[in-house]
Amino acid sequence: MPKAWFDNILDDMRRVDEFAEEATYSDNPELNEMCRYVMGSGGKKFRPAVCILSYLACGGEDRETAAKVGTAFEIIHNASLIHDDINDNGEVRRGRRTLHREYSISKAVVVGDFLLAKGFSILAESSVDIVKVIVNAAVAMGESEFVQQRFEHKDKVTEDDYLEIIGGKTSKLIEACARAGAMLADSSEKSADKLGLFAAEIGVAFQIVDDVLDVTGNPHMTGKKVGLDLEEGKPTLPIIYAMEHETYGRDLASLFRKKGLSEEEKDRAIELIKSTDSLDRCLARAQSAADKALKYLSGIPESEYKESLKLLAQYTVSRDR
Amino acid sequence: MPKAWFDNILDDMRRVDEFAEEATYSDNPELNEMCRYVMGSGGKKFRPAVCILSYLACGGEDRETAAKVGTAFEIIHNASLIHDDINDNGEVRRGRRTLHREYSISKAVVVGDFLLAKGFSILAESSVDIVKVIVNAAVAMGESEFVQQRFEHKDKVTEDDYLEIIGGKTSKLIEACARAGAMLADSSEKSADKLGLFAAEIGVAFQIVDDVLDVTGNPHMTGKKVGLDLEEGKPTLPIIYAMEHETYGRDLASLFRKKGLSEEEKDRAIELIKSTDSLDRCLARAQSAADKALKYLSGIPESEYKESLKLLAQYTVSRDR
Repeated sequence: MPKAWFDNILDDMRRVDEFAEEATYSDNPELNEMCRYVMGSGGKKFRPAVCILSYLACGGEDRETAAKVGTAFEIIHNASLIHDDINDNGEVRRGRRTLHREYSISKAVVVGDFLLAKGFSILAESSVDIVKVIVNAAVAMGESEFVQQRFEHKDKVTEDDYLEIIGGKTSKLIEACARAGAMLADSSEKSADKLGLFAAEIGVAFQIVDDVLDVTGNPHMTGKKVGLDLEEGKPTLPIIYAMEHETYGRDLASLFRKKGLSEEEKDRAIELIKSTDSLDRCLARAQSAADKALKYLSGIPESEYKESLKLLAQYTVSRDR
Repeated sequence: MPKAWFDNILDDMRRVDEFAEEATYSDNPELNEMCRYVMGSGGKKFRPAVCILSYLACGGEDRETAAKVGTAFEIIHNASLIHDDINDNGEVRRGRRTLHREYSISKAVVVGDFLLAKGFSILAESSVDIVKVIVNAAVAMGESEFVQQRFEHKDKVTEDDYLEIIGGKTSKLIEACARAGAMLADSSEKSADKLGLFAAEIGVAFQIVDDVLDVTGNPHMTGKKVGLDLEEGKPTLPIIYAMEHETYGRDLASLFRKKGLSEEEKDRAIELIKSTDSLDRCLARAQSAADKALKYLSGIPESEYKESLKLLAQYTVSRDR
């Protein structure tokens, strides 16, 4: 049995890197260079892992095809990050300048579209049903971005609002990865549903931890500045919980409402969050999402890959990058 | 037999409007409003027309499905215009402010992605092969944008460079519309190829005339300012031909190389172009593309819809908006 979630898919993850390199090649030198810049920046490949492990857990045996479809998800995810960074005017991603800062907004918009199209072109070779699943996720991503923007710098925001936002922003695509893996393995609809629900929950855990790392993370590990969500007024769970705090909540809320925080104000906001029980509550919430995720695996036959999925669920909560 | 290219597809074009309205609806009020802003701005619906007429010319009888797929092309085309306008920092489109000027760049990027996803979701309901055709067109659009940017404000640019750029920027998607229509009608591969080649050529004619209208057009008809391509340093055929002119070519080239033209300089550049034989040469080149297009129709059985396609080819050359 595996000791870490990636133990039994190391070769597959290498194939994902190779496929991604091939699939995003362009004859145009600068476009190609920009694709290399993005694809070679060492993402966690969390989404391909969910796809491949779901496929294998459903008894799939054509690992090559699973890696290919997993690659498509990684490419589409990267495309969405490029456009997200333009939206947020993000400066740093994975330890280096964001694409639009390194090149230009206009070129980065095109590269995002190009990678989206490349990702879809791989999926189009698999099946129409899989394309449908991912397209629905993409639609949800767009809608949730608008919901998020509505709550930016607003202190009247609840855990439910947050869950709605991250459902579209993060969970839907991770759910699509699992569903695609299951569908590719010709599993029953019931299994695909279970794995989809599993993945949606670990998506929740994944995003909560991402938002905790925005407060507590080590930039050398996360590859990005601390406190970005505060600067951008993004309503994350650590901020929402901390704003509920009796003693420190009001001060934090007034900082959160403010646009263009100074470094001192940002540090102060981070201190305020850390002074509350918010981060503990967040990690407990992430853990409960991971626990809920595991329950959905009950109908899936035992296998080493199912074990990996369980480890993956726990990794989403315990990761530090 | 039809008198105008749209005579026998008036109902279908109305269905396209209805489908587009439905398909781009969102529960999020602002996202929905922005989609209405874009989809309701009265595009020519040239791409759905190519798709539907190709379908009907191949003997297709399910007009509802053809209109649906045609709608997908219109939505995807609109999505690409949103991102193009961000890239070029365009101010006016179809007689009103561009989406990112009316709202914001960050929201417009998301709306573009959202519409792309919506367009793909309609196509995904048709067939994997059609999705492949359109995805390849989308990839070509991205690549050609980079080729175009390489030639911006450069006076060493040839007709062949131009044809390469507009091949990806315009022709590929129009070709995809025709191919999709033919494939949807279960026509032979040969017919799909012929209609694809036909459409690629009228795409060339269409774009040349677009570029001529940038010099000669009436803003009330075209819905955009005159001389935008000059301002942005886009290497269009009217500019390329005029730069070849013995007497006026050099002055125009030095204006074309310049970034940030004043209104006077732009007017002067337009005058220079009009003083040459460039616009006549362009229209002759567009006409020869349209003539070449017609030849590809020879293997398609006679019908009123084939007649409409012929009229459509002529319309691309003679249109004033």
